[in-house]
Amino acid sequence: MKYLLMILTSLACTITAAWAGTDDAPTVLSNAEAIKLVQTHADYVWTLIAAALVFFMQAGFALVEAGFTRAKNAVNIMMKNLMDFSMGSLFYWAIGFGLMFGTTNGFFGTNGFFLSDFKVGGDPWVLAFWMFQVVFAATAATIVSGAMAERTKFTGYLVYSAVISALIYPIFGSWAWGSLFHGSGWLEGLGFIDFAGSTVVHSVGGWSALAGAIVLGPRLGKYTKDGGIKPILGHNIPLAALGVFILWIGWFGFNPGSTTAANKDIAMIFVNTNLAAAAGCVVAMIVSWLKFGKPEVGMSLNGALAGLVGITAGCANVTPGSSIIIGAIAGCLVFFSVLFFDKIKVDDPVGAVSVHGVCGAWGTLAAGLFNIGGPTMKIVSTQCIGIVSCFAWTFCTAFILFKLISGTIGLRVPPEEEVEGLDSTEHGGNAYPDFSPNH
Amino acid sequence: MKYLLMILTSLACTITAAWAGTDDAPTVLSNAEAIKLVQTHADYVWTLIAAALVFFMQAGFALVEAGFTRAKNAVNIMMKNLMDFSMGSLFYWAIGFGLMFGTTNGFFGTNGFFLSDFKVGGDPWVLAFWMFQVVFAATAATIVSGAMAERTKFTGYLVYSAVISALIYPIFGSWAWGSLFHGSGWLEGLGFIDFAGSTVVHSVGGWSALAGAIVLGPRLGKYTKDGGIKPILGHNIPLAALGVFILWIGWFGFNPGSTTAANKDIAMIFVNTNLAAAAGCVVAMIVSWLKFGKPEVGMSLNGALAGLVGITAGCANVTPGSSIIIGAIAGCLVFFSVLFFDKIKVDDPVGAVSVHGVCGAWGTLAAGLFNIGGPTMKIVSTQCIGIVSCFAWTFCTAFILFKLISGTIGLRVPPEEEVEGLDSTEHGGNAYPDFSPNH
Amino acid sequence: MKYLLMILTSLACTITAAWAGTDDAPTVLSNAEAIKLVQTHADYVWTLIAAALVFFMQAGFALVEAGFTRAKNAVNIMMKNLMDFSMGSLFYWAIGFGLMFGTTNGFFGTNGFFLSDFKVGGDPWVLAFWMFQVVFAATAATIVSGAMAERTKFTGYLVYSAVISALIYPIFGSWAWGSLFHGSGWLEGLGFIDFAGSTVVHSVGGWSALAGAIVLGPRLGKYTKDGGIKPILGHNIPLAALGVFILWIGWFGFNPGSTTAANKDIAMIFVNTNLAAAAGCVVAMIVSWLKFGKPEVGMSLNGALAGLVGITAGCANVTPGSSIIIGAIAGCLVFFSVLFFDKIKVDDPVGAVSVHGVCGAWGTLAAGLFNIGGPTMKIVSTQCIGIVSCFAWTFCTAFILFKLISGTIGLRVPPEEEVEGLDSTEHGGNAYPDFSPNH
Repeated sequence: MKYLLMILTSLACTITAAWAGTDDAPTVLSNAEAIKLVQTHADYVWTLIAAALVFFMQAGFALVEAGFTRAKNAVNIMMKNLMDFSMGSLFYWAIGFGLMFGTTNGFFGTNGFFLSDFKVGGDPWVLAFWMFQVVFAATAATIVSGAMAERTKFTGYLVYSAVISALIYPIFGSWAWGSLFHGSGWLEGLGFIDFAGSTVVHSVGGWSALAGAIVLGPRLGKYTKDGGIKPILGHNIPLAALGVFILWIGWFGFNPGSTTAANKDIAMIFVNTNLAAAAGCVVAMIVSWLKFGKPEVGMSLNGALAGLVGITAGCANVTPGSSIIIGAIAGCLVFFSVLFFDKIKVDDPVGAVSVHGVCGAWGTLAAGLFNIGGPTMKIVSTQCIGIVSCFAWTFCTAFILFKLISGTIGLRVPPEEEVEGLDSTEHGGNAYPDFSPNH
Repeated sequence: MKYLLMILTSLACTITAAWAGTDDAPTVLSNAEAIKLVQTHADYVWTLIAAALVFFMQAGFALVEAGFTRAKNAVNIMMKNLMDFSMGSLFYWAIGFGLMFGTTNGFFGTNGFFLSDFKVGGDPWVLAFWMFQVVFAATAATIVSGAMAERTKFTGYLVYSAVISALIYPIFGSWAWGSLFHGSGWLEGLGFIDFAGSTVVHSVGGWSALAGAIVLGPRLGKYTKDGGIKPILGHNIPLAALGVFILWIGWFGFNPGSTTAANKDIAMIFVNTNLAAAAGCVVAMIVSWLKFGKPEVGMSLNGALAGLVGITAGCANVTPGSSIIIGAIAGCLVFFSVLFFDKIKVDDPVGAVSVHGVCGAWGTLAAGLFNIGGPTMKIVSTQCIGIVSCFAWTFCTAFILFKLISGTIGLRVPPEEEVEGLDSTEHGGNAYPDFSPNH
Repeated sequence: MKYLLMILTSLACTITAAWAGTDDAPTVLSNAEAIKLVQTHADYVWTLIAAALVFFMQAGFALVEAGFTRAKNAVNIMMKNLMDFSMGSLFYWAIGFGLMFGTTNGFFGTNGFFLSDFKVGGDPWVLAFWMFQVVFAATAATIVSGAMAERTKFTGYLVYSAVISALIYPIFGSWAWGSLFHGSGWLEGLGFIDFAGSTVVHSVGGWSALAGAIVLGPRLGKYTKDGGIKPILGHNIPLAALGVFILWIGWFGFNPGSTTAANKDIAMIFVNTNLAAAAGCVVAMIVSWLKFGKPEVGMSLNGALAGLVGITAGCANVTPGSSIIIGAIAGCLVFFSVLFFDKIKVDDPVGAVSVHGVCGAWGTLAAGLFNIGGPTMKIVSTQCIGIVSCFAWTFCTAFILFKLISGTIGLRVPPEEEVEGLDSTEHGGNAYPDFSPNH
């Protein structure tokens, strides 16, 4: 009887084929395969468009950093942002991706270097995935640039930028996000939640930035001998604001793109991302108004970024209402954090340590506290383990790296070059030769 | 016999399953479900990417407004644009979306506040739809900002921006676009055509802007006592032009994204959007050349925007050839409208009333006149009802709102603050501290 | 027996329909149709989003050109970029698209003018395809603008921009890319590889630019009488850098979008595009460092663009490793090419001839040399035929065109207008009226 039915079904297919007038007529099975393929195409399109949006964040970071610093260093800042992406792409291709997503022993990956796991004619998903990950790696690297602006030697910058892209970021990433091939990272194994990288990307960037700012020391004239703090104003606020708008749209790739799949989950992630940013921006403005007497633009812009960083870990597993709370707290936190680091004389021209380090840690904790499934003690303590291990790994390795650079090729430009500006001394350039900046 | 066949079919499925080596093997029905799901995923991806593009228009509006005004108010303009999106997001989440798309009595919606209709584990389409709509609401709000630039008190701005996002825009929107849940708006019921919002978004923004500009009065020095008009030049034309390019790309989300579905219709909407913008830009340049003797950049930029606003209502139901005509007329209209409002001493620094109010009305009429299905008398008169009711509702409510603000917390800064610039007086900031603007 | 089975199958479908509670229940065939439709929707979404990204390149070109030239010509540059896209859209709609993709005799197309092949209710794919192609045409046109900056008469610019969009670009394009309808171009027939247009778009732009720069002659003061070269500095490096970032993201539409289909191939194209750009940027920086003693920003920015142009032809048929080599060579080539053209006194303010002409030719050759299927003698020689025929066609027609314009309405502004700046003399405008540029 069974065999009879198989014959019947098979014959029915033949007939269907005859109807369609083709030899390879569709069957239930071929349709099921075709559906999977169309979904796969949608996954490719979504993941790669999201990667393009995250790439655009490089422009956002460049504009925020340039806008918040002085005209005499704008060329240097553009060069740094261009180079950390360009060199970072090459180093992440050669080394970083393999360490981060290769078959892992729990601590680092061991294959996939030079994209060698992609064979012509093979499944190109590894390429789509690499493309999405390389723009993340570059984000971690470029965060550091802001905190070390206006006084870092360009050669020193190139070295630390390469090491962060090739080693520091990928190794921590492998702990939390595990392998594309086989095995899982030790933090991942504990159940650590960091959907799009509040810790993996932003805290790694932020704590590296902290180490860098400490090793470098403050800009000349920032802190007076009598303990005063002299604000050094950014030279182009519209550019900085444009940078924040670009980062905001980039985050619509960063967070929802982290599904690396075209599915319904991206809707809530979009909404959460947007509401947290909005809440962070509004709260930071209000706090600045209460404390300074006027709604301050720099704090408001950083408030939006703080909300975005804060929601990055939990964007897929908290509700929209919780996102507003998470963003609002981030907007408050970034304000006081910026003042705190200024008070202890860690000179961070753009507030990168506060936005990415502190709010990254907050977001990681919040992903546990506001978890849709309920914040169990185990989840919250795992989040804390992730936060602490990120700080320990990143701050220590980055600190050693910066000390090594400082003791060898040099990390800081001489004072006279800092006064003249890095554009002319490091690059023989001038960002605005038709205008005469008044420094 | 029927039961025998059911058994046969069922058995055939069992066999197919055995072939595929899995228990839940595909069937015709499961395939049909899966196809629907993949299409749904494509709808989510398309709608949300379009939302991201529309979000980017916030940056475009900020740059156009800043570029077309003076350097001393650039910080204020960035703050306003940042805040109308941030606060607008929160107010639209709490109030606006429910009023606009909740179950409606024809005049306003009554549920969906605080996104309360989304339950964890439920269908997240309401979130995707909200995300697309919140960026529309923010567009209406931010249009107003341009017409009231360089003299509006920041607190007054925050209040009217909130009221427009929470009440004025959503209530008119519910008339024309109806409910996501149940019921339809009264204008929608008449057959009103406004596919992507020439009236719903742009005219609402434009007529609110008109009310605001009238209540505020012109900037100091704009109109001389002897009846002369003194042009106040924009301080950064490249930024304004970049803003227009950003708005143009944003419109590729605004118009085709209004399908909120990944389908073939988006192709014609893209083409229509682009051709209308191109025609508007070219015609505005030609008219400015004929009238001023030289091709003027501000008019050309506004011509592109006029074409975009003009095609927004009819983008899905007119041909590409008609789009060129619609855009060309819009480009001509915006030129004379800008001169007209200047002549009657309504000071609109960026031409927002002409671009969004006047060309929004034109676009709405044009959607009827050039309707692919033919312009019946009924369609054209319905379009006129929509245009008039939008003006009546928006101008009146906005006028009252601005008068109320003016009479209480104040809408306009004192003259000495206006002369000094809003950046320092309202925000304690300076957009370009390294340069010395020559006002 | 066969007929019995047909009846059985048909009955089974009826039953399935009854189960689903609808009259048009799914069948294997209807499912197969539906799958094709969903894939088609994904193709539309991908192609049109890619078109939007390529459109954004117009902003990138505008910023690079404005940033690399003087403040007194910034309005003129914005006007040119706005107009070549706007007029180009209209001319490509009326004439260019038909010549390029109409049914072809091997040398030009003969239908599709005014998008007349699209009938309401017909298949809108021609519209999606047109939208993707119009942004390519505008790219070719806008490349020319950079090489002729700061001295070209606006009326002359409008004429040549129209002719390039309507004739020069589409006719060469039809040789290499053939028809959407019927027939193939003669170069296409030889097996010429130019996936996304290293030759079709970039070399056409670059060689037209070369003809224009030669006919125009250098800017006043660029070359001194004793044979010296006086650098004329760009007035806004952050804008230029933003332009390069925008071009880079735009290229993620340009290259992978050239599949005009949502498929897996886009992954490798993304990766190749990114790696070539990164390599070009790093190598150009290194070479400038070795030659000038300092890492120069203009060369580094052009190095990224060189890598992007270089990979455009071969992005779909070379490996990621090869892409790095192709980009690196392009980064080196652009450096020496810029110096070469300066030495022979062809004044190209932004390096457009080197970036687009020279590196476009290199990329076309490289697509043959690094071809995944192996570089046969036939492939390489066909690539050379394509490169040479592009130069011959483009340089000759463009040279004649520029000579004609020069002899009639005039191509160059009078010296006193060039000294004063084109913003005031050609447009009655001023890009930065709040600041006093120091020319």
